[in-house]
Amino acid sequence: MDDRFIAVDWGTTNRRCYLLDGAGTVIETFRDDRGVLAVGQQGGGPEAFAAEVAAIRARLGDWPLVAAGMVGSQRGWALVPYLSCPASGGQVAGALHAIDARTWIVPGLSDPRGDVMRGEEVQLLGAVAAGLAPPDALLCQPGTHCKWARMEGGAVASFFTSMTGEMFALLRGHSLLAEFLNGPVADGPAFRAGVDASADGALLKALFGVRASALLGLRAVGDSAAYASGLLIGSDVRGAGVGAGREVHLLADPVLGALYTAAIAQCGGRSHLIDSHAAFVAGIVQIRTQIWSLARDC
Amino acid sequence: MDDRFIAVDWGTTNRRCYLLDGAGTVIETFRDDRGVLAVGQQGGGPEAFAAEVAAIRARLGDWPLVAAGMVGSQRGWALVPYLSCPASGGQVAGALHAIDARTWIVPGLSDPRGDVMRGEEVQLLGAVAAGLAPPDALLCQPGTHCKWARMEGGAVASFFTSMTGEMFALLRGHSLLAEFLNGPVADGPAFRAGVDASADGALLKALFGVRASALLGLRAVGDSAAYASGLLIGSDVRGAGVGAGREVHLLADPVLGALYTAAIAQCGGRSHLIDSHAAFVAGIVQIRTQIWSLARDC
Repeated sequence: MDDRFIAVDWGTTNRRCYLLDGAGTVIETFRDDRGVLAVGQQGGGPEAFAAEVAAIRARLGDWPLVAAGMVGSQRGWALVPYLSCPASGGQVAGALHAIDARTWIVPGLSDPRGDVMRGEEVQLLGAVAAGLAPPDALLCQPGTHCKWARMEGGAVASFFTSMTGEMFALLRGHSLLAEFLNGPVADGPAFRAGVDASADGALLKALFGVRASALLGLRAVGDSAAYASGLLIGSDVRGAGVGAGREVHLLADPVLGALYTAAIAQCGGRSHLIDSHAAFVAGIVQIRTQIWSLARDC
Repeated sequence: MDDRFIAVDWGTTNRRCYLLDGAGTVIETFRDDRGVLAVGQQGGGPEAFAAEVAAIRARLGDWPLVAAGMVGSQRGWALVPYLSCPASGGQVAGALHAIDARTWIVPGLSDPRGDVMRGEEVQLLGAVAAGLAPPDALLCQPGTHCKWARMEGGAVASFFTSMTGEMFALLRGHSLLAEFLNGPVADGPAFRAGVDASADGALLKALFGVRASALLGLRAVGDSAAYASGLLIGSDVRGAGVGAGREVHLLADPVLGALYTAAIAQCGGRSHLIDSHAAFVAGIVQIRTQIWSLARDC
């Protein structure tokens, strides 16, 4: 029982807290909207984050705590420098930022060609650690900022980010296309037509076509959102070099997982859907094991 | 003196009114913010547009009037059907929508592959009519929605639209990149690096790199806006198939004209800058001449 610890996946908007044992059994978990921005809006600063963590311990027990994600950014609890790729689980554990003797923040990763992540590295390393993905693999984490990571020998060798989800939200929320993008988004003929259309690479041109085709009656307005989603996800998948025979391990919720699975298949690739919560837990347990091991070595 | 007429380039946000003679001499002109949206906000409807035109005639004289642009859209004075490409000046003049015996709206054009324009067709046809561009040419009208038109025998053979300018505004106004995009946009090393980076076609990935490179100190934050502009304009130019030896006739203001000129040159093409006001005047004079000629034939 005394190998219990708390893990926090602490993002910009939301966070998920886990009470785990050393084997990765989830004893208790909850999710709420106390993301980094919400804490920041109530004053922020180290005291605010310390108070948040005290509240988490009051709820889950007074255990050691490891937090990952935007909590380690300028807007978070402390600015933890990025660890440069390639980066293994051991290197990440060795670069933890200690708030105190029982509270740590996981560093984000940088790709020296010009990219950054905070939090996703735990899932990536955990997917391999738990045997959910092979040590050499292409992993994809769809979302607001979709991450594509090349794993080599179980380490994050390189990665890049596409602003696929954010772009869809921008178009739906603020663009001239907005009024055409209220329809449902699911795999189907309209989504697949969008994935097809993404092949010519001229995204700015294809996007305007969403509006024009609706105005001309060439596509039902209700199909436009699925078509635009296909365009964006198709561009993302092609931009990652996914083609004939390429395997992709997807860390995704069921909705985005289904869309990326369809787009990858349409581009000739094959995908494997991985439970991203299980990957996070495996990753944080691996890191926690390294902390204890490092502590024993001291 | 009795061949005078009024031309209105009546867009979404602004409009420009001209008092012209039959030879295209600009006797008087003014620009204001009484675009289609502004008229719509004060009630809209045919009466509102009729009142606007009465006010224009009160200022410029009680002459025949020809209006082009979004004034012919659902949000404008009357919904004028698109004329399908290929479309010559004569065909456009023959498809004018008559509000009354001395007031006309120019129809927009559609490309059957899925694109639309309203207003730009007058500049395109006028550029050729005035000898500012050859009858067979690739014309480009940079802006919020950049139009690329293929002219054949002086007619608009086909065209497409890129949402280049709108995308930049979306990113600067509403995206996670916003805080990095306040710097100046001009031709220079950062802009050209963006045009270079647009070559790999993965725009969603390159855009996120704007933020990541600034965070990692790989690019000065003050250079990020010029770099992002280069990415978008480079994508636009490449998406139009501009490569070695390709000639483009640009209908642009000096600022966008300079950026597109630089990007086209970097992609191996050559550009010629055309005065878009002169092209509009030439186009509307050509249409007006056709109206008078059609009237005589009846």
